[in-house]
Amino acid sequence: MSTIEIEYCVPCGFLDRALTVEEAICRQFADQLDRISLVMGDHGVFIVRVDDEVVFDKADDPLDVDDIVRRVRPYVVGR
Amino acid sequence: MSTIEIEYCVPCGFLDRALTVEEAICRQFADQLDRISLVMGDHGVFIVRVDDEVVFDKADDPLDVDDIVRRVRPYVVGR
Repeated sequence: MSTIEIEYCVPCGFLDRALTVEEAICRQFADQLDRISLVMGDHGVFIVRVDDEVVFDKADDPLDVDDIVRRVRPYVVGR
Repeated sequence: MSTIEIEYCVPCGFLDRALTVEEAICRQFADQLDRISLVMGDHGVFIVRVDDEVVFDKADDPLDVDDIVRRVRPYVVGR
Protein backbone atom coordinates (compact mmCIF):
# COMPACT_ATOMS: atom_id res chain seq x y z
CA MET A 1 0.00 0.00 0.00
CA SER A 2 1.23 3.45 -0.92
CA THR A 3 0.95 7.02 0.25
CA ILE A 4 0.62 9.87 -2.24
CA GLU A 5 1.23 13.58 -1.77
CA ILE A 6 0.15 16.37 -4.09
CA GLU A 7 1.92 19.58 -3.10
CA TYR A 8 0.28 22.57 -4.74
CA CYS A 9 0.70 26.35 -4.70
CA VAL A 10 -2.21 27.84 -2.75
CA PRO A 11 -1.77 31.51 -3.81
CA CYS A 12 -1.46 30.43 -7.48
CA GLY A 13 -4.95 28.94 -7.34
CA PHE A 14 -3.79 25.41 -8.13
CA LEU A 15 -6.42 23.86 -5.82
CA ASP A 16 -8.69 22.83 -8.70
CA ARG A 17 -5.82 21.13 -10.49
CA ALA A 18 -4.76 19.37 -7.30
CA LEU A 19 -8.31 18.12 -6.71
CA THR A 20 -8.59 16.91 -10.31
CA VAL A 21 -5.34 14.96 -10.08
CA GLU A 22 -6.31 13.56 -6.67
CA GLU A 23 -9.72 12.43 -7.90
CA ALA A 24 -8.23 10.73 -10.96
CA ILE A 25 -5.69 8.88 -8.81
CA CYS A 26 -8.34 7.82 -6.28
CA ARG A 27 -10.68 6.53 -8.99
CA GLN A 28 -7.89 4.35 -10.39
CA PHE A 29 -5.93 3.29 -7.34
CA ALA A 30 -7.91 3.80 -4.10
CA ASP A 31 -7.62 0.08 -3.31
CA GLN A 32 -3.83 0.31 -3.50
CA LEU A 33 -3.49 3.40 -1.30
CA ASP A 34 -3.38 4.07 2.42
CA ARG A 35 -3.85 7.79 1.98
CA ILE A 36 -3.51 10.67 -0.45
CA SER A 37 -2.72 14.15 0.81
CA LEU A 38 -2.95 17.66 -0.51
CA VAL A 39 0.03 19.59 0.87
CA MET A 40 -0.24 23.36 0.87
CA GLY A 41 2.69 25.10 -0.82
CA ASP A 42 3.58 28.30 -2.63
CA HIS A 43 6.02 29.70 -5.23
CA GLY A 44 4.28 27.86 -8.08
CA VAL A 45 4.90 24.38 -6.75
CA PHE A 46 2.97 21.41 -8.13
CA ILE A 47 4.66 18.14 -7.25
CA VAL A 48 3.26 14.63 -6.97
CA ARG A 49 5.08 12.14 -4.75
CA VAL A 50 4.47 8.43 -4.23
CA ASP A 51 6.02 7.19 -0.99
CA ASP A 52 8.22 10.31 -0.92
CA GLU A 53 9.47 9.75 -4.47
CA VAL A 54 8.76 12.57 -6.93
CA VAL A 55 6.85 11.22 -9.95
CA PHE A 56 5.75 14.58 -11.35
CA ASP A 57 7.05 18.15 -11.03
CA LYS A 58 5.39 21.00 -12.89
CA ALA A 59 8.79 22.71 -13.02
CA ASP A 60 9.94 19.94 -15.38
CA ASP A 61 6.86 18.88 -17.34
CA PRO A 62 3.48 20.18 -18.50
CA LEU A 63 0.61 19.28 -16.20
CA ASP A 64 -1.38 16.46 -17.81
CA VAL A 65 -3.69 14.48 -15.54
CA ASP A 66 -3.58 11.29 -17.61
CA ASP A 67 0.20 11.49 -17.75
CA ILE A 68 0.39 11.81 -13.96
CA VAL A 69 -1.91 8.79 -13.49
CA ARG A 70 0.34 6.80 -15.85
CA ARG A 71 3.39 7.79 -13.83
CA VAL A 72 1.77 6.80 -10.53
CA ARG A 73 0.61 3.40 -11.76
CA PRO A 74 3.89 1.40 -11.61
CA TYR A 75 4.50 2.57 -8.04
CA VAL A 76 1.17 1.46 -6.67
CA VAL A 77 -0.09 -1.48 -8.74
CA GLY A 78 1.06 -4.90 -7.69
CA ARG A 79 2.30 -3.92 -4.27
CA MET B 1 -1.33 25.47 11.10
CA SER B 2 -3.45 22.35 11.15
CA THR B 3 -3.63 18.94 9.56
CA ILE B 4 -6.95 17.45 8.52
CA GLU B 5 -7.86 13.84 7.77
CA ILE B 6 -10.99 12.60 6.04
CA GLU B 7 -11.26 8.84 6.48
CA TYR B 8 -13.82 7.39 4.09
CA CYS B 9 -15.15 3.96 3.19
CA VAL B 10 -13.77 3.02 -0.24
CA PRO B 11 -16.08 0.04 -0.97
CA CYS B 12 -19.13 2.13 0.04
CA GLY B 13 -18.36 4.62 -2.72
CA PHE B 14 -17.87 7.54 -0.33
CA LEU B 15 -15.09 9.03 -2.48
CA ASP B 16 -17.32 11.72 -3.97
CA ARG B 17 -18.50 12.80 -0.54
CA ALA B 18 -14.93 12.86 0.75
CA LEU B 19 -13.81 15.01 -2.19
CA THR B 20 -16.73 17.39 -1.69
CA VAL B 21 -15.91 17.85 2.00
CA GLU B 22 -12.21 18.23 1.23
CA GLU B 23 -12.84 20.86 -1.44
CA ALA B 24 -15.14 22.86 0.86
CA ILE B 25 -12.54 22.81 3.64
CA CYS B 26 -9.72 23.81 1.26
CA ARG B 27 -11.71 26.70 -0.20
CA GLN B 28 -12.33 28.07 3.29
CA PHE B 29 -9.17 27.24 5.18
CA ALA B 30 -6.27 26.39 2.82
CA ASP B 31 -4.20 29.24 4.28
CA GLN B 32 -4.60 27.77 7.77
CA LEU B 33 -3.64 24.20 6.81
CA ASP B 34 -0.42 22.30 6.31
CA ARG B 35 -2.13 19.39 4.63
CA ILE B 36 -5.44 17.61 4.20
CA SER B 37 -5.54 13.87 3.63
CA LEU B 38 -8.01 11.34 2.33
CA VAL B 39 -7.50 8.14 4.32
CA MET B 40 -8.83 4.94 2.77
CA GLY B 41 -11.14 2.99 5.09
CA ASP B 42 -14.00 0.51 5.01
CA HIS B 43 -17.00 -0.67 7.07
CA GLY B 44 -18.96 2.51 6.34
CA VAL B 45 -16.49 4.87 7.98
CA PHE B 46 -16.66 8.60 7.34
CA ILE B 47 -14.72 10.53 9.95
CA VAL B 48 -13.15 13.99 9.83
CA ARG B 49 -10.25 14.74 12.15
CA VAL B 50 -8.42 18.00 12.81
CA ASP B 51 -5.00 17.43 14.37
CA ASP B 52 -6.11 13.89 15.34
CA GLU B 53 -9.27 15.14 17.06
CA VAL B 54 -12.56 13.81 15.68
CA VAL B 55 -14.82 16.70 14.66
CA PHE B 56 -17.30 14.65 12.60
CA ASP B 57 -18.31 10.98 12.56
CA LYS B 58 -21.02 9.73 10.21
CA ALA B 59 -21.86 7.08 12.83
CA ASP B 60 -23.11 9.89 15.09
CA ASP B 61 -24.47 12.59 12.78
CA PRO B 62 -25.91 13.06 9.28
CA LEU B 63 -23.35 14.09 6.68
CA ASP B 64 -23.78 17.79 5.95
CA VAL B 65 -20.89 19.55 4.24
CA ASP B 66 -21.68 22.99 5.66
CA ASP B 67 -22.00 21.53 9.13
CA ILE B 68 -18.58 19.87 8.82
CA VAL B 69 -17.01 23.16 7.66
CA ARG B 70 -18.55 24.90 10.68
CA ARG B 71 -17.11 22.25 13.00
CA VAL B 72 -13.64 22.54 11.48
CA ARG B 73 -13.53 26.35 11.69
CA PRO B 74 -12.78 26.86 15.43
CA TYR B 75 -9.89 24.39 15.23
CA VAL B 76 -8.09 26.08 12.36
CA VAL B 77 -8.95 29.79 12.40
CA GLY B 78 -6.78 32.02 14.53
CA ARG B 79 -3.98 29.52 15.02
